[in-house]
Amino acid sequence: MSFRVGVIGGGQLARMMIQPAQALGLTLKVFAETEGSSAALAATQIGDYTKVEQIRQFAKTVDAITFDHEHVPLSVLEALEADGVSVQPPAKALKFAQNKLHMRVRLTELGLPMPSWAEIKTADDLEAFIAENGGIAILKTPIGGYDGKGVAVVRSAADASDWLANIEDFGGSLLAEQKVDFVRELAQLVARRPSGEIRHWPLVQTVQRDGVCSEVLVPAPNSSPADLDRAAAIAVTVATGLGVTGVLAVEMFETADGEFLINELAMRPHNSGHFSIEGSVTSQFEQHLRAVLDLPLGATDSVAAHSVMVNLLGVDDSNDFVGTYPEALKSHPNAKFHTYGKAPRQGRKMGHITVIGADSSEVLLEAKNAASVCLQG
Amino acid sequence: MSFRVGVIGGGQLARMMIQPAQALGLTLKVFAETEGSSAALAATQIGDYTKVEQIRQFAKTVDAITFDHEHVPLSVLEALEADGVSVQPPAKALKFAQNKLHMRVRLTELGLPMPSWAEIKTADDLEAFIAENGGIAILKTPIGGYDGKGVAVVRSAADASDWLANIEDFGGSLLAEQKVDFVRELAQLVARRPSGEIRHWPLVQTVQRDGVCSEVLVPAPNSSPADLDRAAAIAVTVATGLGVTGVLAVEMFETADGEFLINELAMRPHNSGHFSIEGSVTSQFEQHLRAVLDLPLGATDSVAAHSVMVNLLGVDDSNDFVGTYPEALKSHPNAKFHTYGKAPRQGRKMGHITVIGADSSEVLLEAKNAASVCLQG
Repeated sequence: MSFRVGVIGGGQLARMMIQPAQALGLTLKVFAETEGSSAALAATQIGDYTKVEQIRQFAKTVDAITFDHEHVPLSVLEALEADGVSVQPPAKALKFAQNKLHMRVRLTELGLPMPSWAEIKTADDLEAFIAENGGIAILKTPIGGYDGKGVAVVRSAADASDWLANIEDFGGSLLAEQKVDFVRELAQLVARRPSGEIRHWPLVQTVQRDGVCSEVLVPAPNSSPADLDRAAAIAVTVATGLGVTGVLAVEMFETADGEFLINELAMRPHNSGHFSIEGSVTSQFEQHLRAVLDLPLGATDSVAAHSVMVNLLGVDDSNDFVGTYPEALKSHPNAKFHTYGKAPRQGRKMGHITVIGADSSEVLLEAKNAASVCLQG
Repeated sequence: MSFRVGVIGGGQLARMMIQPAQALGLTLKVFAETEGSSAALAATQIGDYTKVEQIRQFAKTVDAITFDHEHVPLSVLEALEADGVSVQPPAKALKFAQNKLHMRVRLTELGLPMPSWAEIKTADDLEAFIAENGGIAILKTPIGGYDGKGVAVVRSAADASDWLANIEDFGGSLLAEQKVDFVRELAQLVARRPSGEIRHWPLVQTVQRDGVCSEVLVPAPNSSPADLDRAAAIAVTVATGLGVTGVLAVEMFETADGEFLINELAMRPHNSGHFSIEGSVTSQFEQHLRAVLDLPLGATDSVAAHSVMVNLLGVDDSNDFVGTYPEALKSHPNAKFHTYGKAPRQGRKMGHITVIGADSSEVLLEAKNAASVCLQG
């Protein structure tokens, strides 16, 4: 029996799939954009993922294709599927990840909770939406945004004049969403096999700083069992309703009255699930591989009562964090350090630290303190 | 700062070092004997580890040299050390791992508990030892034995006539040891840095079948805190007294009156420590890398109350165990499967399964049942 997974994209998500692939004895091949990528150890082809012939050649060497990112053109994915390649998640699911308008339409059809939204084609559309939503809106480019890019807070159509003038560059439409007055942000991870099996991890709280994930607290503090069930049910509905396979992250706002409103989706292992490497019986990376090969999923129970993950974002062009190990490992023997083999650059996701344990405050403190030793260089 | 480890030997121990090396962002290079080794993913040189010039060339590409096995000739290691290479563990420690007679002499000097033993040069020596030890002895070749090879149970010198006739092939001496009437076998793992820091994992019970490790129970059942401390103290004395760096496994017999007698030593990650990948805050593989680079050691606390590891030994020339995943993963979602990428062969160490949890009987049962699904093919 052959279990070969091909990952398009050589970033840290592909890198972190290498470990469980090797443990399980699966074959992992990475199609990277450049030499020296984070996942270079498993890279078997370097190329341009927008070129269908290059991807076709890569696909011949594996049993299933999956992704480190969501930027492979739908036309490429559809061509692979027409060839009979197992693409996981399939193009019909990824189209919702690649286009936030399509996603909102489909989630609305599924009756899922989300911010109010509208398709915007003109300045008048936008003015009307702003007026209906308290004088403010979140405006998004339907395609290509992530980590705060392609998102703007607008109070009038004038605030969006650039995007409106170039609206054809975004497919002719923008997406306006209600600016939710949330009390915190949450993420719910699930994994789904093509044949239907679904498992979910516990709901987590994500703390964002400048639009980028800074910390993840597991499980989301002060959530009742009913809350956890409700969040899981939302993600299961999304995965099933959109036909997602592999890992799906559903990012949500929690409002003051306890509503969960879907913000963004990611159809791949996600920053909010990095804790699962140490914190769960089955990590999101192992589960993703099992899911895309349509192998049975592993248990998602937590190994400890609490896990905290803190991202290591680059501070300058010289601190690669590895150089801080003599001090950081010494002062924090319980912290698990992960670095992604990237050249240092300010704000870049360079690595993360996870701490698991019985006491939520101690775990959070240790993870933050360990990160702070790394960041001080 | 540069943290590059070179591992001589491409077996499963080198393979399992790849994962923590990548997580920490360290560079791991493997000197393998053949293409397609278990650690092929990290292999940067293929060659013969008995050839000093080949090893010298490899050593130039890394900051520290360590090992997947203990078979590199001392002369090669001493040549590297003369070049100024950091060899961990150093030749002065490895000489005790490579020669069981030297080991017994040194452990005796350190006053450590062990079976009675004698150096055997003649049939008369052996007859005398057998007579003093109840009419039976364990006879070992001082060099080259492992997993039951190079070990014989003898009741007279005639039982050892082959080895005695060729004694010069073994360096001119054999090692006779008392056949201990043990109640069980134990192993104590420690890790030590060149600069002195030592950490130990909990004492484990190892179950052997046909001279090969079959199961490991963590912690060793029914051991008192005083027992655990005594076992740890023995291993710490060995590590310090022999100048071991990296991971050291001390295999011991427990007698009916509760004595711990040192049986064998392994100066590298060891089968009895595979549980630590899931069962400990810091696995033996991560710890070995940290130790040989003289980086601060990680916490060795257990993640769960109990861990059980069961080896997957080859059953025939066709079952690679990976092919059993559709059934094995389905029936055992809590079991963590590891396979080593080896061609199937009867009796070969092909992989292992670890289960961690709160209840020792449940954990043992799940690990054994999961293995049994794999073994049935």
